[in-house]
Amino acid sequence: MSSVARTAAPVAAVPSPPPPGALRVVALGGLGEIGRNMTVFEHDGKLLVVDCGVLFPEEHQPGVDVILPDWSVIRDRLSDVVAVVLTHGHEDHIGGVPYLLRERPDIPLIGSRLTLSFIGAKLAEHRIQPVTIEVREGGRLTRGPFDLEFLAVNHSIPDGLAVAIRTGAGLVLHTGDFKMDQFPLDDRLTDLRGFARLGEEGVDLFLVDSTNADVPGFTTAERDLTPAIEQVFRTTPGRVIVSSFASHVHRIQQVLDAAHANGRKVALVGRSMLRNMGLAIDLGYLTVPAGLIVDQNTIEGLPAHQVALVCTGSQGEPMAVLARMAAGTHPISVGEGDTVLLASSLIPGNENAIYRVINGLTALGANVVHKGNAKVHVSGHASAGELVYCYNIVQPSTVLPVHGEHRHLRANAELAVRTGVKRDRVLVARNGDLIDLHNGRATITGTVEVHNIYVDGQTVGSATEATLAQRRALGTEGVLTVVAIVDPDTSRLTEEPDIIVRGFEHGPDDFGPLTSALEKALTRAAERGATTLDDLEDTIARETVKWVRKTFGRQPVVIPVVIDA
Amino acid sequence: MSSVARTAAPVAAVPSPPPPGALRVVALGGLGEIGRNMTVFEHDGKLLVVDCGVLFPEEHQPGVDVILPDWSVIRDRLSDVVAVVLTHGHEDHIGGVPYLLRERPDIPLIGSRLTLSFIGAKLAEHRIQPVTIEVREGGRLTRGPFDLEFLAVNHSIPDGLAVAIRTGAGLVLHTGDFKMDQFPLDDRLTDLRGFARLGEEGVDLFLVDSTNADVPGFTTAERDLTPAIEQVFRTTPGRVIVSSFASHVHRIQQVLDAAHANGRKVALVGRSMLRNMGLAIDLGYLTVPAGLIVDQNTIEGLPAHQVALVCTGSQGEPMAVLARMAAGTHPISVGEGDTVLLASSLIPGNENAIYRVINGLTALGANVVHKGNAKVHVSGHASAGELVYCYNIVQPSTVLPVHGEHRHLRANAELAVRTGVKRDRVLVARNGDLIDLHNGRATITGTVEVHNIYVDGQTVGSATEATLAQRRALGTEGVLTVVAIVDPDTSRLTEEPDIIVRGFEHGPDDFGPLTSALEKALTRAAERGATTLDDLEDTIARETVKWVRKTFGRQPVVIPVVIDA
Repeated sequence: MSSVARTAAPVAAVPSPPPPGALRVVALGGLGEIGRNMTVFEHDGKLLVVDCGVLFPEEHQPGVDVILPDWSVIRDRLSDVVAVVLTHGHEDHIGGVPYLLRERPDIPLIGSRLTLSFIGAKLAEHRIQPVTIEVREGGRLTRGPFDLEFLAVNHSIPDGLAVAIRTGAGLVLHTGDFKMDQFPLDDRLTDLRGFARLGEEGVDLFLVDSTNADVPGFTTAERDLTPAIEQVFRTTPGRVIVSSFASHVHRIQQVLDAAHANGRKVALVGRSMLRNMGLAIDLGYLTVPAGLIVDQNTIEGLPAHQVALVCTGSQGEPMAVLARMAAGTHPISVGEGDTVLLASSLIPGNENAIYRVINGLTALGANVVHKGNAKVHVSGHASAGELVYCYNIVQPSTVLPVHGEHRHLRANAELAVRTGVKRDRVLVARNGDLIDLHNGRATITGTVEVHNIYVDGQTVGSATEATLAQRRALGTEGVLTVVAIVDPDTSRLTEEPDIIVRGFEHGPDDFGPLTSALEKALTRAAERGATTLDDLEDTIARETVKWVRKTFGRQPVVIPVVIDA
Repeated sequence: MSSVARTAAPVAAVPSPPPPGALRVVALGGLGEIGRNMTVFEHDGKLLVVDCGVLFPEEHQPGVDVILPDWSVIRDRLSDVVAVVLTHGHEDHIGGVPYLLRERPDIPLIGSRLTLSFIGAKLAEHRIQPVTIEVREGGRLTRGPFDLEFLAVNHSIPDGLAVAIRTGAGLVLHTGDFKMDQFPLDDRLTDLRGFARLGEEGVDLFLVDSTNADVPGFTTAERDLTPAIEQVFRTTPGRVIVSSFASHVHRIQQVLDAAHANGRKVALVGRSMLRNMGLAIDLGYLTVPAGLIVDQNTIEGLPAHQVALVCTGSQGEPMAVLARMAAGTHPISVGEGDTVLLASSLIPGNENAIYRVINGLTALGANVVHKGNAKVHVSGHASAGELVYCYNIVQPSTVLPVHGEHRHLRANAELAVRTGVKRDRVLVARNGDLIDLHNGRATITGTVEVHNIYVDGQTVGSATEATLAQRRALGTEGVLTVVAIVDPDTSRLTEEPDIIVRGFEHGPDDFGPLTSALEKALTRAAERGATTLDDLEDTIARETVKWVRKTFGRQPVVIPVVIDA
């Protein structure tokens, strides 16, 4: 708890309040990145939050577990928050909630049944009992000055919702994450009729998922994956091992159906897979024929052709089940005759890790079927073709592309313009931009600073960009500690310094000439009166950096330790 | 020079020699990876090397510049090497040559004109003047017991060669890197007639490029990219900035032609682009209309619609021209109206870096055209459809898939089997496997150990897997130095230890309770007689690791510094 206060980002300068009667919209995450979605709506002194997710770090953010949205700008106003609406149960939309509720545990969470069950399980691990308000498509409720209406949207997790927000300032529609599969596996279509009705009423601001805005055409229907999945189950002589996202209930349903049709039992492997599918079964989102799912012990006793495993690790995560199978360190050994089915996307940045797993499995003799060689995955987000349908149906006054890197937001903006939205009514915004909807017109009126808030071990917000820069330097160059015993009266070394290195390959033998270089530098420093402990450390560090760069062509992080003789 | 001897990999146990009359083939790099290609052929006591390239490190190999093949198994026999054949001028085939020639500078290099000019320029930077033997397609020469014949192959760099190696043991054909563009820009086809003739003679062992063996169909012709490249030059109102590989002479030719046709002058930007294209122009591989290429100063004075720039950085390399333009730190500023054309592949592992550059350029207002949204790049390697033509034309006795990760080698092996090569005559091998061709049959008869040889600053082979593991730990967790002054008689701390952290975010205040934990641990150690300096360091390190993990949930690298009071 205390660590939250130690945030690196200072509380942002409080922006001037929105004009009377206006609705202010500010994204604290999710613009310019895919992850940590969090948008705050302010009206009449009250705040409504939509989503509170996490962002997963990239390779230049080492040691970071997840990145949170930066809600420092509303930290002093958490009592004004009337609710957090969670559009669906993915981590990039709900993963930040436990950290937000640490600061005010009784903020009501509004969401669909499955979404609330996923966040409930997560909060239970954080020992938080949330206040929840369950809603469903077609539902409508009022919180403070916000009149909320929920609409069904189709996505790669069941029970997703779009939310329409009515205030005195106008009507806002936020799609959440969505696509428009016209034959969804659960027959729950994205509610374009509802979108049309809201369009008739007049949507003043339309927030639209941009993830696939640069992908031409239409996302293939989930049902069209069935033949390729079926074929794997029908033709594999050994075991079928399926790896997918632990929240992709529909994909797992397809896998269970294929296993059942081909006389295989299924074991679920991996903590998050077991937890989420358990919830999905309990709540009726996943239909399981009696006796189909068995435990891992039972499955190990069955002949290979009667076995299917469903596990985590489709992104090559080194500690997940699949990577351990590929490395031969998991109790279940994979081999000749088995097929591994990666029914998942290949998230940019994870390629090397995934290919390492595929190479490992291939070397063990398994056949690996993935998106690259079979039709076994489609995205959960609307492609360009679907998005233009939306724009033409809703015909919004102003568009705010959300949920994307800059290139996605811009591609989405171009789509809106092509459907006839005026270019100056399409806002390509950044996290922290203040968008005020006032007199029927939404414009960017200012900006607040928004930082990356790093969760790092048990600390939140302690690690800064400077910390990460140090880690990158340590990780590429290693560290060199110089322990120097110095006579405080003469500023002279009393013996050869000790050199301790990690991640830098040179034994102490190579450091002989450093001693005389340090001696000279210390003498020069003494001559100009630089003899405090700080001066000595500084002199030793600088001289060592210089000497090591010249001698070895490298730049390890140098830590000077000066001891009084 | 001296650092070479300090290699981490011990000289491999000398394998028993091949049977009399046999040809031994061993890959010292390039199997199970895309990079550091190097294959050694041994016959009658002499060695022939084909290619000597580098491998670029992945994210789990921090601080490494490049990775070399491991030639320790032939280090004591470099005088037996009759030549190094370089199939073409890409880094993964020639990049290791300077390091090999440091060990024996007069090994003759055999290659085509462009290949020798590229390696010559590289060796000049290393101040090595090589012994070279220029060959061209159709050429034949004998080195020791090896009768060599060279055949034209088409690739993403001009002047590539396949090599047929005849010895008393039989006929080997090595494709080098190739594809089979039927309308190559330089009209230099892969010599399938020659392949057919060798097939008639009887190819006993066929080494085949596997890079695209898992890509179905045929690689699109380079000529078919012209319309998309043309369109960029025709329709861009501002400047056109093209980024491509600095060795892709044909692609650059297309770009120069499109610029010329559309009234634009061209500046080449970036050291490697200037160097390689200068060589290509001098040798006649690149045809440049008079006055088309101008220098950077001249181009800055021209109106935007008359400007084209050709630069490096298509893989998102942070120090290359394109990334600096995207970050706004390059003298040439990119903006609204400009188009950036990435006429290059997206090498797995580089996605995040490339997308960072695309996002940066997009945010500056530029339009970015790349492989993902236009037909502006094709691979330089044969796809599955092309490879099966080769197998059917050559009808080899035995196949050795080369140049690929395990999944590529295996996919290539399956293609060979589908064309009728017996499964036991397709060798999916690893680096170091000894393949003996004897009495017309090639089999794996043993293995020598092959390591990754890391070039790291000015050292070669000093950094080991353990070094990299330390760097990974430092890079994700940071480092914590404990400076403890200990009374040698009592093993007690004489004052609170100093804690110095880097990449780990906790001030000294948080470490209060550590002192008493260390006191207790030192007392316990003293009680069991562990009082040497090593014992004290060990005790302090262990206790600190334990305490930090419990207190902060993190595992920084702990460096104990113990000073006698």
